[in-house]
Amino acid sequence: MKTRIGILGYGNLGRGTEIAVAAAEDMELAAVFTRRDPAGVMILTEGVPVVNVSEIENWKDKIDVLVLCGGSATDLPVQTPKYAELFNVIDSFDTHARIPEHFANVDAAAKKGGKIGMISVGWDPGLFSLNRVYANAILPDGKDYTFWGKGVSQGHSDAIRRVKGVKNAKQYTVPVESALESVRNGENPELSTRQKHLRECFVVLEDGADAAQVEKDIKEMPNYFADYDTTVHFISEEELLRDHAGMAHGGFVFRSGRTGVNKENNHIIEYSLKLDSNPEFTTSVLVAYARAVKRMADEGMTGAKTVLDVPPAYLCIQSGDELRAHLL
Amino acid sequence: MKTRIGILGYGNLGRGTEIAVAAAEDMELAAVFTRRDPAGVMILTEGVPVVNVSEIENWKDKIDVLVLCGGSATDLPVQTPKYAELFNVIDSFDTHARIPEHFANVDAAAKKGGKIGMISVGWDPGLFSLNRVYANAILPDGKDYTFWGKGVSQGHSDAIRRVKGVKNAKQYTVPVESALESVRNGENPELSTRQKHLRECFVVLEDGADAAQVEKDIKEMPNYFADYDTTVHFISEEELLRDHAGMAHGGFVFRSGRTGVNKENNHIIEYSLKLDSNPEFTTSVLVAYARAVKRMADEGMTGAKTVLDVPPAYLCIQSGDELRAHLL
Repeated sequence: MKTRIGILGYGNLGRGTEIAVAAAEDMELAAVFTRRDPAGVMILTEGVPVVNVSEIENWKDKIDVLVLCGGSATDLPVQTPKYAELFNVIDSFDTHARIPEHFANVDAAAKKGGKIGMISVGWDPGLFSLNRVYANAILPDGKDYTFWGKGVSQGHSDAIRRVKGVKNAKQYTVPVESALESVRNGENPELSTRQKHLRECFVVLEDGADAAQVEKDIKEMPNYFADYDTTVHFISEEELLRDHAGMAHGGFVFRSGRTGVNKENNHIIEYSLKLDSNPEFTTSVLVAYARAVKRMADEGMTGAKTVLDVPPAYLCIQSGDELRAHLL
Repeated sequence: MKTRIGILGYGNLGRGTEIAVAAAEDMELAAVFTRRDPAGVMILTEGVPVVNVSEIENWKDKIDVLVLCGGSATDLPVQTPKYAELFNVIDSFDTHARIPEHFANVDAAAKKGGKIGMISVGWDPGLFSLNRVYANAILPDGKDYTFWGKGVSQGHSDAIRRVKGVKNAKQYTVPVESALESVRNGENPELSTRQKHLRECFVVLEDGADAAQVEKDIKEMPNYFADYDTTVHFISEEELLRDHAGMAHGGFVFRSGRTGVNKENNHIIEYSLKLDSNPEFTTSVLVAYARAVKRMADEGMTGAKTVLDVPPAYLCIQSGDELRAHLL
């Protein structure tokens, strides 16, 4: 019997989850839940109902894992604990500083409901976290480096849009190539914020706006841009929509560590992602971990979990024998 | 109380394990076991006994995890099942084709003894396997690529030494840069053996040997060299010992996979290692997994395990709370 997946929220993540479930031979999409009028939500999979979230309790026995596709700012802090009482759930909560609090809330709810609540699954947090943890355990004496990009930062794009005179904008976070090379060469550099990433902005002005003033306002914005080398390109709205609609992203995690009687040997572990579609890759991770959620629930586990708690084999369709024969 | 580690076999791996245990604040070295005369084995750690392996049974209650540091060809197929009946054990068995058989033997012995027997821990098999498994689970529609090097291949160096006229030799396996770039660019190339790796040989001739004949014999050797672009450099024994005594190694694991309604998005996952000391890095992995072995044994698990069965958090000294707050 296939694992029955529910999706709550049908934006980029909901749609990506739907695509990843369709590609998983051991899963089927049971229903998509939405806060909108279901009649206005067109999904890709034929024959699957779109249901208003107010009716979700009726689906308690028809869904094995509910994938929560809301945002981390306001949706997931409420939704994940709420639905972890009723369903095995999984989310991509990515506000690093609030993970301990979110974990505690989900843990209490999931234990009350006898369910699994897996949080913060994606690539960072997620695959990047895994790599930080493995590499720290293996090389206890070392330094970690995480770089993001090249990719669009939603938060920085939003910040530019709030500048007076700006009609629309996209901001790319770009890792500094010379910093990557220095880390790769085992130089263990101390890198300032400015030395790690560049910020590249594509801005559409409102009619009559003062371009020089807008550029100054962006470059001097505290926290977001003041500590970075920032470039601002003014383009037309047509160019923005045509050339900057993509959702590519990526990044790098390094650990550089020493071993030896006199710490004479250096080792570099590097992990990197180059993604054409950030939401589709993130949801591909979510769906692999949804498989693990089902297995952990079937074993009788309950409570909040993260990627750090999951044996890698639990993500796979293949049996242990098959994995050992072909992938170990 | 610290985890008490025993080491069986004191070559490069035994010494590397000793160094890694000394760097782990939650572990202590209890004893080193050897088939040699213990009086002739000088270890680095003061106050730790070197014991003949014939007395190992007396240490049953004084060791939490025994790290088996023998070779995969003849030592480990015998030692790991034998000692898994008496101790929680861990090995770095790396003959990929024989892993299923080794797993079955160790599983039976470890279950009989009520112990954990963890096999094939290191970087390949080991960390590379983890990356293959994670990436396959996340991107089911894709291609895997593994490259090794630049590093010394012991098997190929041995093969050269068996050629008539050769006194000594070292062989480096070198990944082809253009092949790496093609994979990184998402071109999903079909790569022949010759297109993936180069073989670079440093050879010391015996007095009076025919260099041209030796070079021909190496380059035409089936399986080892005939399918590769091979270069042969003749050097003096002094140069070989001075310039080619290092144990650096490394490699790359890629998965390139597609998602999307029409498979229109490509994603590249790349993992790479650049290691100054292959044995010290391998044993750093072994010691991190020895921590997991102790924890799994304490939880009452028994039988054979691999890295695919271990939740990443089990490798760490830190608590779950600490990991979620700082590394997730």
